[in-house]
Amino acid sequence: MKYRIIFFLAFAFVTEISFAETGYRLWLRYDRIENPDLLEKYRSQIKSINFEVKSEMAGVAKKEILLALNGLLGKKVTLDATNLASLIIGTPESSSVIKAMVTANEIPNSPEGFLIKTFITNSQLKIVICAKNDKGVLYGVYHFIRLLQSNSSLDKLNNNQSPTIKNRILNHWDNLDGTVERGYAGSSLWEWHKLPGFTPTRYTDYARANASIGINGTVLNNVNTNALSLTVPYLLKTAALAKVFRPYGIKVYLSARFSAPIELGGLKTADPLDPQVKQWWIDKTKEIYQYIPDFGGFLVKANSEGQPGPQNYGRNHADGANMLADALAPFGGIVMWRAFVYDDKVPDDRAKQAYNEFKPLDGKFRENVLVQIKNGAIDFQPREPFHPLFGAMPATPVMMEFQLTQEYLGFSTHLAYLGTMFKETFSSDTYSKGKGSTVAQVISGKLDEHQLTAIAGVANIGSDVNWCGHPFAQSNWYAYGRLAWNPEFSADQIAEEWIRLTFTNDQLALTAINKIMMESRETIVNYMTPLGLHHIMARNHHYGPGPWVKNAGREDWTSVYYHKADSIGIGFNRTATGSNAVAQYFPVVAEQFGDVKQVPEKYLLWFHRLKWTDQLKSGNTLWNELVEHYYDGAKAVDSMQVTWQGMKGKIDDDRHEEVAQLLKIQFSEAKWWRDACLLYFQSFSKLPLPAGYEKPQHDLKYYQNLKFNFVPGIKN
Amino acid sequence: MKYRIIFFLAFAFVTEISFAETGYRLWLRYDRIENPDLLEKYRSQIKSINFEVKSEMAGVAKKEILLALNGLLGKKVTLDATNLASLIIGTPESSSVIKAMVTANEIPNSPEGFLIKTFITNSQLKIVICAKNDKGVLYGVYHFIRLLQSNSSLDKLNNNQSPTIKNRILNHWDNLDGTVERGYAGSSLWEWHKLPGFTPTRYTDYARANASIGINGTVLNNVNTNALSLTVPYLLKTAALAKVFRPYGIKVYLSARFSAPIELGGLKTADPLDPQVKQWWIDKTKEIYQYIPDFGGFLVKANSEGQPGPQNYGRNHADGANMLADALAPFGGIVMWRAFVYDDKVPDDRAKQAYNEFKPLDGKFRENVLVQIKNGAIDFQPREPFHPLFGAMPATPVMMEFQLTQEYLGFSTHLAYLGTMFKETFSSDTYSKGKGSTVAQVISGKLDEHQLTAIAGVANIGSDVNWCGHPFAQSNWYAYGRLAWNPEFSADQIAEEWIRLTFTNDQLALTAINKIMMESRETIVNYMTPLGLHHIMARNHHYGPGPWVKNAGREDWTSVYYHKADSIGIGFNRTATGSNAVAQYFPVVAEQFGDVKQVPEKYLLWFHRLKWTDQLKSGNTLWNELVEHYYDGAKAVDSMQVTWQGMKGKIDDDRHEEVAQLLKIQFSEAKWWRDACLLYFQSFSKLPLPAGYEKPQHDLKYYQNLKFNFVPGIKN
Repeated sequence: MKYRIIFFLAFAFVTEISFAETGYRLWLRYDRIENPDLLEKYRSQIKSINFEVKSEMAGVAKKEILLALNGLLGKKVTLDATNLASLIIGTPESSSVIKAMVTANEIPNSPEGFLIKTFITNSQLKIVICAKNDKGVLYGVYHFIRLLQSNSSLDKLNNNQSPTIKNRILNHWDNLDGTVERGYAGSSLWEWHKLPGFTPTRYTDYARANASIGINGTVLNNVNTNALSLTVPYLLKTAALAKVFRPYGIKVYLSARFSAPIELGGLKTADPLDPQVKQWWIDKTKEIYQYIPDFGGFLVKANSEGQPGPQNYGRNHADGANMLADALAPFGGIVMWRAFVYDDKVPDDRAKQAYNEFKPLDGKFRENVLVQIKNGAIDFQPREPFHPLFGAMPATPVMMEFQLTQEYLGFSTHLAYLGTMFKETFSSDTYSKGKGSTVAQVISGKLDEHQLTAIAGVANIGSDVNWCGHPFAQSNWYAYGRLAWNPEFSADQIAEEWIRLTFTNDQLALTAINKIMMESRETIVNYMTPLGLHHIMARNHHYGPGPWVKNAGREDWTSVYYHKADSIGIGFNRTATGSNAVAQYFPVVAEQFGDVKQVPEKYLLWFHRLKWTDQLKSGNTLWNELVEHYYDGAKAVDSMQVTWQGMKGKIDDDRHEEVAQLLKIQFSEAKWWRDACLLYFQSFSKLPLPAGYEKPQHDLKYYQNLKFNFVPGIKN
Repeated sequence: MKYRIIFFLAFAFVTEISFAETGYRLWLRYDRIENPDLLEKYRSQIKSINFEVKSEMAGVAKKEILLALNGLLGKKVTLDATNLASLIIGTPESSSVIKAMVTANEIPNSPEGFLIKTFITNSQLKIVICAKNDKGVLYGVYHFIRLLQSNSSLDKLNNNQSPTIKNRILNHWDNLDGTVERGYAGSSLWEWHKLPGFTPTRYTDYARANASIGINGTVLNNVNTNALSLTVPYLLKTAALAKVFRPYGIKVYLSARFSAPIELGGLKTADPLDPQVKQWWIDKTKEIYQYIPDFGGFLVKANSEGQPGPQNYGRNHADGANMLADALAPFGGIVMWRAFVYDDKVPDDRAKQAYNEFKPLDGKFRENVLVQIKNGAIDFQPREPFHPLFGAMPATPVMMEFQLTQEYLGFSTHLAYLGTMFKETFSSDTYSKGKGSTVAQVISGKLDEHQLTAIAGVANIGSDVNWCGHPFAQSNWYAYGRLAWNPEFSADQIAEEWIRLTFTNDQLALTAINKIMMESRETIVNYMTPLGLHHIMARNHHYGPGPWVKNAGREDWTSVYYHKADSIGIGFNRTATGSNAVAQYFPVVAEQFGDVKQVPEKYLLWFHRLKWTDQLKSGNTLWNELVEHYYDGAKAVDSMQVTWQGMKGKIDDDRHEEVAQLLKIQFSEAKWWRDACLLYFQSFSKLPLPAGYEKPQHDLKYYQNLKFNFVPGIKN
């Protein structure tokens, strides 16, 4: 008994020993289990481990489980090659013990699925983590660690999981000069100059973090790309990264510059139907696979925002994508061809352009092409209705592009948990094949029976020591990975899981922080773009409000194009009497969105133009409702601050203080958004603030005259 | 007895628990003392602590000592306000116990000095850390922690220290857009966009690291500066950083753009004698002190490399510096005016320009001006003779500018411990007042009796998780701080100390790593610029060899200007028959450097032009000697690799692997340097490689045609 007391005393000290809590460890925190009873129980349940390693991937899985157990349990677990081990890990091929214990049909058939199961033999508990192959084992190991980190019971585990989407990919908008387009967490992780020779520990930690949430691919370079990425020196660098990521089940992909045959190959054209161009890509692709045998494929932004593409040669997107697809096919590579296009003349409605260009191409793409579609038709706004292309290209595998980096959501100073936003899109019903044809069903390939499925998240990761700038921005990386694994997971459940892994298992803190997270995105919508408003950010850098932006080079780069406020009213008429963008949706949806009485109010001004004095469901006029949303938004940030103050002492002081500082900035910027937007809209509505609202701190001119230098995320 | 065994077992586990070893913790690693006997002894010696806190500075000192003891000893130390405490910390004013125990004259009078002393009372050991004020206490605390980290005996401490140089400053060449000029460790630490609201934990850790080695000032922005830094929004941001750094005894300084009165003030001139200009600086300075009451002052790069300065208005450096000095004087601020000037026409010898411009101004500067002089007269070369201005301006406080960032020393991929280089300059004898007039004596103010003393180090710190890019580059930050504290410390002793704090106290490892460090800089000199060669790096980015660089805009931007190789010989004749730069040194030195028989061979080609076939002391011809140096240099890197392999298991795998990778790059680049330079020089000497040397891998053309994109440290 004395033994144990001392043991605990010793460990009690340990948790207090630390350097600063920088957030570097993300959700892979293996600090000692705090609950002493549970610690004791886990220790009694996990005494030994049987994990026979026959591959590099199994090797990293074993290293991880030992690291985690060592940390979480605060003791070394003995290795035991027999069936008496308490934790038995592997595949039926690698482990005769597993082969004997688990029947083949219990193990998921999916190449990435796993089974975690508790057995009780002679009243001794044994836990098996197994899979058809080592990739599943790796994921199973990370899931098991997550169970420990979140203090789950091990008594009756029977957890059989497989991912819903096959290719779960991060898109890094990282430039070769180390800047990150729309990056708010420092500079690029990739130190190109020091590659291929130097692959610091951080790259492995990046791979660990991704593998732990099932991300299995990464596009290393910006979609606005430089052809240099395809030259041999850079391929060698990419190969060095691929080597680090490979044991963690992560493939590398590259953004390909469509005009590379001209820039690198010295050809006169990049016409996708030109035989020399085709041959150049065939040769280049072959070369890439020499260096990176498991290269994932190309991501392409073509004929959009100045990027070259097939339309430069009178060809269409399918012509361009198929040429690359043919070059990749022999090696199993894929093309992810972005549907985010705008080029040439300003269309009647930007929201319609992607559909107009891509819908007619349905069925014209090769088998190894995916069309990569942003969640909404404009551009990663705080809220957008789902993109009308989802469900509209049944003969083509289409993939989702979410943006984790908060280009339009307060950069890395605003707390925005985006799990709710991702879910909002996933659960939207396209009605493409009747009720229940959700976006998730489209993306998972279930609806249109596609084997090739994928999802992309534009990364929010940079050189900041905490990876994402805002401690809570890590939750979006996490949530993205978890939802890419299974879009049916709930945003709430993922938030709770993340809090447990990242901050604490304390029940009060869990409840409070979860509330903050679950309300955070709606809060931002309220103080930035309520009721369906969109794209009214400041020009170019998108930092802060800019509803007054006009004369910006082309009409659809202005704010006034999107909100159309005047003395009568506000909103973009996308019904049949307007741009008729609603007609791009399937009839049930088109009818709902197109009818001002049926449209969800959150999309009101996206689809409809209303008078300032029109009455909404609440009984408020549109003006008063707008005011209410803006004030509610700012007020909610204040409440978040109060809640967060209550977390002091529940989590480490370092991250508590950082978040407190960031919430203070957010509160100030929320008021800035509120006041600037309302003052601007008021200059049209000429209506007063309803009684009881505090007055804006400054006048409209003040907000319009604010200028910012060196805003991150763009090249200055 | 059983107790203890279990105790140790428990702690044995602990050291194995960790996330990746990224190097973030620098030398402030408070992991449990590994030697069990010593741990036991320390625990018995340090049981309780008496530290009464009456200032924010004392508060951070107390937090640090508790953190360190908690980590190093693995137990909580009790607080004890009596004289029975084993560790008693404070000033005679803050602590009656100290007042009673320590006689006033034992404590250093210096405002930053401290005393650490062991008392034995009734056979109980007590350690007092005390100082005249809290700044000294802070430094004493960090020194005491260092003693524990390096496993020193506490039995008979009597350590009374004060810094030799008053202002010990880092110069950050950080731009407002987040890039770092000549930075090879990621982007700038300063997230200007998020300031003033957000001051992440990392800023505190930066302050801790600096305070721990006595650095007490930091210039936040690049000497090639943007006037925006002096506007109110940026002053608020600077003030927020100052607030974080203040409790750690660190003042902030700013680089001031000389033309700011025009750019910000709307004046037509920045003429330092213009009354409006003077008034503008007086007002601006007053404004700065409103936001930052302990603002340190201005660093100025004027009339150099395109920067504006007084010479634009026909005034001299003293005119410019004095104007700023007058504005700063009421607040106690200082001006650091850089002597690194080159402008206008190419001088007959660049090495002479600073002396020519500044020597005549000696005595013309205000009392609060320091002239900041680079260690050598050219530009931070792997080796330069000391700058002739040292000792030449006895009536002016002059300060040293070292470069920690390895602009010319292999960036952050080559292992270069610069403690030896700093010492080489410090110990150089200027003979300005006879033998013993070392540069250290000049800088410390002792030689010419100056109260105002300072030293600057151009920082090698960036956003990389390990701060400096190369794990060993941290040693230069460390060595700089330690030598700024006391230039008499030996490079060897500092290296050993750093290894103990950073890697291990293992004796075999200490010896091996110390050897690597102590030889590292000479190794680089050998494979880059032996025998006094200089500035033969590639153009602009300085990455790799470029002895062939000519036609680069102006003559002194070329390599051929500096080495002057032709079919006859090589070297820059700076004797009386040449540029006569030697005449800028005091006679004893001038005679030595000017005489080809007396000049140290390491400076041979710096001062002399020789024939390829001239015989050197070794008996070798110059050509053969050059060859030998280049080959020795590359070979030494190979030996470093072998030695480092032997460190596997002695230190953590993560950093071991990182350094192994970097040494591999260094070895490859050392051979590149060797082969490129020798092939190029051979094209003049027409002499063969002596027998036994491996042939270059490529021909000269190959090396000359190498092109690199996106090399860090410059704007692309």
